Amino acid sequence: MFEFDFIEWLSSQMAEHPDVVLGVGDDAAILMASGDLQVLTTDLLLEGVHFELGSATCEQIGRKALAVSLSDVAAMGAIPTVAVLNFAFPKTLAFAAAQAIFQGSLQLAREFKVAIVGGDTNRWNQGLVVGSTVLGRMQHSGWRLSGAQPGDLLLVSGSLGGSLLGKHLDFAPRCDLAAALAPFIGIHAATDISDSLTIDLAEICRQSQVGVCLEAARIPVAPAAHLRAEQTGKPALEHALFDGEDFELLLAVEPQVAGRMLAEPRLAGQLTPIGFFDGSEKLVLRRPDGSEEPLPIRGYEH
Amino acid sequence: MFEFDFIEWLSSQMAEHPDVVLGVGDDAAILMASGDLQVLTTDLLLEGVHFELGSATCEQIGRKALAVSLSDVAAMGAIPTVAVLNFAFPKTLAFAAAQAIFQGSLQLAREFKVAIVGGDTNRWNQGLVVGSTVLGRMQHSGWRLSGAQPGDLLLVSGSLGGSLLGKHLDFAPRCDLAAALAPFIGIHAATDISDSLTIDLAEICRQSQVGVCLEAARIPVAPAAHLRAEQTGKPALEHALFDGEDFELLLAVEPQVAGRMLAEPRLAGQLTPIGFFDGSEKLVLRRPDGSEEPLPIRGYEH
Repeated sequence: MFEFDFIEWLSSQMAEHPDVVLGVGDDAAILMASGDLQVLTTDLLLEGVHFELGSATCEQIGRKALAVSLSDVAAMGAIPTVAVLNFAFPKTLAFAAAQAIFQGSLQLAREFKVAIVGGDTNRWNQGLVVGSTVLGRMQHSGWRLSGAQPGDLLLVSGSLGGSLLGKHLDFAPRCDLAAALAPFIGIHAATDISDSLTIDLAEICRQSQVGVCLEAARIPVAPAAHLRAEQTGKPALEHALFDGEDFELLLAVEPQVAGRMLAEPRLAGQLTPIGFFDGSEKLVLRRPDGSEEPLPIRGYEH
Repeated sequence: MFEFDFIEWLSSQMAEHPDVVLGVGDDAAILMASGDLQVLTTDLLLEGVHFELGSATCEQIGRKALAVSLSDVAAMGAIPTVAVLNFAFPKTLAFAAAQAIFQGSLQLAREFKVAIVGGDTNRWNQGLVVGSTVLGRMQHSGWRLSGAQPGDLLLVSGSLGGSLLGKHLDFAPRCDLAAALAPFIGIHAATDISDSLTIDLAEICRQSQVGVCLEAARIPVAPAAHLRAEQTGKPALEHALFDGEDFELLLAVEPQVAGRMLAEPRLAGQLTPIGFFDGSEKLVLRRPDGSEEPLPIRGYEH
């Protein structure tokens, strides 16, 4: 039987993890609850919405399903610990393809020392669905969307735009960066860029009740955004502002602390200051020529 | 926007919970990790496999999605604490229907004091998918599938069979019974009956490396199994053995402890002894006339 064989096979793929008392194969997993705070996040990836079976490999689909949840854990400043995965496989999908999807998740899980402790496997006559739920732990109170303060600098990791050309399938969730940043006191808010720089930034502003000035000239525009600009005829900056699925960290940080981060050799080149928050509740885009306009808020429409 | 409005609306439905530091609305929820052990379980319900949009109400679908995971938590002997829900809504589904699905989950969550702390809402052009992931905590080492011992009595809660006639949509997950049983030392193994009495019992035997003698005359056959038997022309007992989706607890218990449970007024009528485990590794069905045969292992094929 497909489901049974699949679970037998994936159970054989698991490594040990200090938080896991009992993993796959029972009604539920058993975990050690440490004294720290935990974070819990979940995502559901759908064929035709978040990936196409034709253009993404099975490994990439499985990888992305877990990666988007790891990115959320990183955006809280937490360390991911355990995950459960859900699969709805089309009945036409081969067993080897199901294995490859799981392998994609598992390889990423190993990379970040995350234990896969359970899941639910089903087959049906419709599209492929992969769900992931990840637990993490942290020793601070969490980088919330609501904590940005006037005067905070806006920092972003990596570079932005053109994710559809490939990065949306093979991005590295910023867990290592989050772990390196966790000891810094003065990170007031954070999120990961999934919808788009402008949408996710607007959500920080809304929840924090602050305004922001985003400096266009400082935004790290990805090479893929330039490639995409050649295809669309739009400026590469627009792709950095609106494409989404960059899965980079967006942080609101106390200026002195941001200065220390930017000077820290271990973090060299990983963070770019791209603006500052203020008490205005206005969202402003400052163009390279110094002119300012209301920040347009939009993203990729699935 | 459907997704945004839906999340805004559902955020307004949430109550406070002592384990929840931060609920819906950020990248992840923040939870208090207590010193106890935790359990983690997940399920994915698919239109046309686990429910039909035509015959189940939206509330029933949302309720079942959470109930199956609560049942798994009960089957570990744990108390459910928090849940996250995932939705893939067909684009043709009305906003009010999406709300009704969530209401079904939320009402059950409130009944069992479970906090819904996050989720992922998507729309697509295919069937309805509802996923749930539930965390629970327990103060013992967990009722595992692998712990049954020769000599243990086999107990079952409630009655079995004919679940398709309605119970599979409105069953009460046995969380309260599990909480009442948790203080008893001597529950060696447990599961909930999802696939079928025979399949789930066989899994306990396989993992525990024990045999079992199931006494047909003792099995509590549900009224629905008799109704179903009238429809199918098969004996009602067959429906109790093979229908599945009863979501009753199946327990392997030390005989003296089982005796105390069955004598306990608070538990009166909630548990029935239906057989015993032995060291034979054989699975046997003892018919009412005393004859024995190998236990047929099968369940409802989705």
